[in-house]
Amino acid sequence: MTACLLACGVDPTRSILFQQSSVPAHAELSWILGCHTTMARLARLPMFKEKSGKLKEVPLGLYIYPILQSADILLYKTTREREVASVRSLRNPAQKMSKSDPDPKSRINLTDTPDQIRGKVKKALTDFTSEVTFDPANRPALANLIAVHSAASGLSAAEICVRSRGLETAQYKMAVADALVARFEPIRGEMERLSRDAAYLRSVLDAGAERAAKVAEVTLREVKHLVGFD
Amino acid sequence: MTACLLACGVDPTRSILFQQSSVPAHAELSWILGCHTTMARLARLPMFKEKSGKLKEVPLGLYIYPILQSADILLYKTTREREVASVRSLRNPAQKMSKSDPDPKSRINLTDTPDQIRGKVKKALTDFTSEVTFDPANRPALANLIAVHSAASGLSAAEICVRSRGLETAQYKMAVADALVARFEPIRGEMERLSRDAAYLRSVLDAGAERAAKVAEVTLREVKHLVGFD
Repeated sequence: MTACLLACGVDPTRSILFQQSSVPAHAELSWILGCHTTMARLARLPMFKEKSGKLKEVPLGLYIYPILQSADILLYKTTREREVASVRSLRNPAQKMSKSDPDPKSRINLTDTPDQIRGKVKKALTDFTSEVTFDPANRPALANLIAVHSAASGLSAAEICVRSRGLETAQYKMAVADALVARFEPIRGEMERLSRDAAYLRSVLDAGAERAAKVAEVTLREVKHLVGFD
Repeated sequence: MTACLLACGVDPTRSILFQQSSVPAHAELSWILGCHTTMARLARLPMFKEKSGKLKEVPLGLYIYPILQSADILLYKTTREREVASVRSLRNPAQKMSKSDPDPKSRINLTDTPDQIRGKVKKALTDFTSEVTFDPANRPALANLIAVHSAASGLSAAEICVRSRGLETAQYKMAVADALVARFEPIRGEMERLSRDAAYLRSVLDAGAERAAKVAEVTLREVKHLVGFD
């Protein structure tokens, strides 16, 4: 995971990259927040209702996870959300592309080899029209493929359509796969190189944890003071 | 609280005296343990059922408190329970003497003045027999007073009965109050003296937290290793 983020270009001198389990303040603030909420409030959360409904035995972690998430955010007084490119499942454009989708063909992983990427794109859902047009309402599967292509290449959907004029669906899929391979292959190479350098990854995480702990400790002290822990 | 424990004779060089909130490992182990239990297991605990049944809004803290208690014990690999002298409420021998009893006359506090102690003992429940006999089954209120007397004086129940032969209930209560005052007055004085020495109390707690954290960290590292956090 650390190798992946670094390979994708996260700069550990500008961003604080750390393992949450190395900064005790997350668990400490979680405990304090947990003592200031009620069981009913947590039971009402939609994500909990959806996930717990499918389980016979509900792990406590699922129920109290939103508290940890709050602590994770509040400790650093975060005010902005990360923006995520919205791409859909390659097999069902009604669903988001997700690493928790049980069908591995529904997504492209950063660790996929060129052959795997080509295979997945070849099997991606399209429709029975062979022309490449960007029409999310009527041709959602193809529009998603164009969105993936756009994210990988930096080209706009309109540019992609112009460049793909006259291509059959199968030919267009090859172009999408090529763009993904061109984008992901250097990242995958860098990930592999970094993965072999455990000492460097450890040093990045240790330095990150130290910096994160300093910020988190300040907030935790404020909270402890407010709840009367000093 | 710290002043109280020290005044009662806890030796901070032999015992580790610290504030749990100063040792992050308690919250950290709680989180890990919480992720390894189910909601149903916690909901089944008798103490939770009893306390939550009386509440309209159940604080999450009440529900997950047993997890923190487990962490508090497991971090130090505790194998022995403290032994507590069992004394009952002065107003109702069917209940334990407890600092959470809503009736302050039900208990003697270490901070009570001699006048307060005498007043509470005077109003303690007894029965209509004036002779002092130790008979927990038939005379539970008096037996409890004798138990309190015994705990304060170090005399056995039998010795107390012999010494109290011929006393009226009111006279016997005076003897119990005198024993409590004799036992508690030096503690109360020492508590007051220590309470004025905030720097000393702080230094005891800081040194304790440092020692506790060292022990707790070792256990936490073992647990983190076992759950795959390294």
